[in-house]
Amino acid sequence: MEQTIVENGVPEIHLLPAREDAYGGVVVEMEKPMDPNSFCKMLRASLLQWKLQGKKGVWIKLPIQLANLVEIAVKEGFWYHHTEPHYLMLVYWIPETNNAIPPNATHRVRIGAIVLNDKRELLVVREKYGRFRERGIWKIPTGIVDQGEDISVGAKREVLEETGIDTEFMDVLAFRQMHKYFFEKSDLFFLCMLRPLTFDVKNQDSEIAGAQWMPIEEYAAQPLAHEEWMFKDVSDLCLAKLDKNYNGLSPITSFFNDLVSYLYVHKQDLNL
Amino acid sequence: MEQTIVENGVPEIHLLPAREDAYGGVVVEMEKPMDPNSFCKMLRASLLQWKLQGKKGVWIKLPIQLANLVEIAVKEGFWYHHTEPHYLMLVYWIPETNNAIPPNATHRVRIGAIVLNDKRELLVVREKYGRFRERGIWKIPTGIVDQGEDISVGAKREVLEETGIDTEFMDVLAFRQMHKYFFEKSDLFFLCMLRPLTFDVKNQDSEIAGAQWMPIEEYAAQPLAHEEWMFKDVSDLCLAKLDKNYNGLSPITSFFNDLVSYLYVHKQDLNL
Repeated sequence: MEQTIVENGVPEIHLLPAREDAYGGVVVEMEKPMDPNSFCKMLRASLLQWKLQGKKGVWIKLPIQLANLVEIAVKEGFWYHHTEPHYLMLVYWIPETNNAIPPNATHRVRIGAIVLNDKRELLVVREKYGRFRERGIWKIPTGIVDQGEDISVGAKREVLEETGIDTEFMDVLAFRQMHKYFFEKSDLFFLCMLRPLTFDVKNQDSEIAGAQWMPIEEYAAQPLAHEEWMFKDVSDLCLAKLDKNYNGLSPITSFFNDLVSYLYVHKQDLNL
Repeated sequence: MEQTIVENGVPEIHLLPAREDAYGGVVVEMEKPMDPNSFCKMLRASLLQWKLQGKKGVWIKLPIQLANLVEIAVKEGFWYHHTEPHYLMLVYWIPETNNAIPPNATHRVRIGAIVLNDKRELLVVREKYGRFRERGIWKIPTGIVDQGEDISVGAKREVLEETGIDTEFMDVLAFRQMHKYFFEKSDLFFLCMLRPLTFDVKNQDSEIAGAQWMPIEEYAAQPLAHEEWMFKDVSDLCLAKLDKNYNGLSPITSFFNDLVSYLYVHKQDLNL
């Protein structure tokens, strides 16, 4: 993979192995350990080469095992773009025009699951930890959507994990965007309606102290209901769904860049 | 801020300055440069102390100027949690129970803006860059929602930047979740309806080659319409909005943790 520049007898300079991206930039994925001094020399020579070639963004992916090379890249002007637990992605913008590097992910996605049986009862859980525990509050199942997981799949998974109830995903009744929710990042919370396919509650999650069906009115009358949006809004949405034909946005399958994805629309109004 | 352990005449060991978080963990925000050897000793002594105190998660925020300390933290077992361009957050889980560190942000948020005038024309732009440019395709204004920015605010900003048209935000007609959209991260794309408050198109964005009003049917009949969801779905949504009273989810203001945030609901069905 390494390239070599030979010029008029000047010692060979190795360049970092790089592939071109679709936006006029290059991506270096470091894999093997490298002496920091060699990395520094190769990075400088490579940057010179890429500048001559008119490249724009330069990405360097450093596995966590190569943490000793982070400082070198930063000294050459790179900054942090994003991380996964096992790697750090650094980036550098060569042109003198405005930096067009796309931003990092900004949002975490969570779901709250509204599951109603035919007795106008809501599926609720009591948490072992967190601020609702001490006051014995029952709340709807909630959880974080995993990386790469569909919202509808995450909602079904959380309900099953926390209550043992199998469900069919219906629609997104509402969503909320909250900022600076953890560190600088934002939170998108989707209130989802699911139809129960089974009804026997099984408490099987280590973070859940109990699960049960509870009349909507009882849910809304709990101590925190007046100060916590999740209680008032959830019960309003339940009643609107049951009594006023409230419809949210439902997923329809389609394709984008050859990947299946879901478009959430108001199906009824679109005559789908 | 530094704490000191003095024990039976053994040399003093300084601990890293740390504050407690709300989940039984500690947060270290490094600010000043430190010699890597001193940092290593202080980190080890601090970890020992935190273990004795029964602490759980340990967070270390390293400004990019202190990139030379990244390797030390990694060698002590820390891994990467998230980054901003100017800092790296590392994390470590002390207990032997399952790691309960919350995940990093997973999604980027984008908007597509549907703006219709009273002649059943759609506000469209032609991009200077990207795959639509070469084929002369007109598309709706789209853009990335900034970190900390409300979806409704981001939609209005993008329309103004790309077309000079001032708008009022109406509702989210549909949204799409796409995975592995850039690196490992996902993308949430909100199709938003905005009502124009002005009508004279001004092309003022350096990435936009032109902007105009275009009949919906003409928009949908463009070359890529059959293979690109944004053309067929957008025109379907426009027609449903104009002719079938299609309503999406509209923002209502509320509070969460003393911060203003928007809950997007189907207002009409909720009798709001």
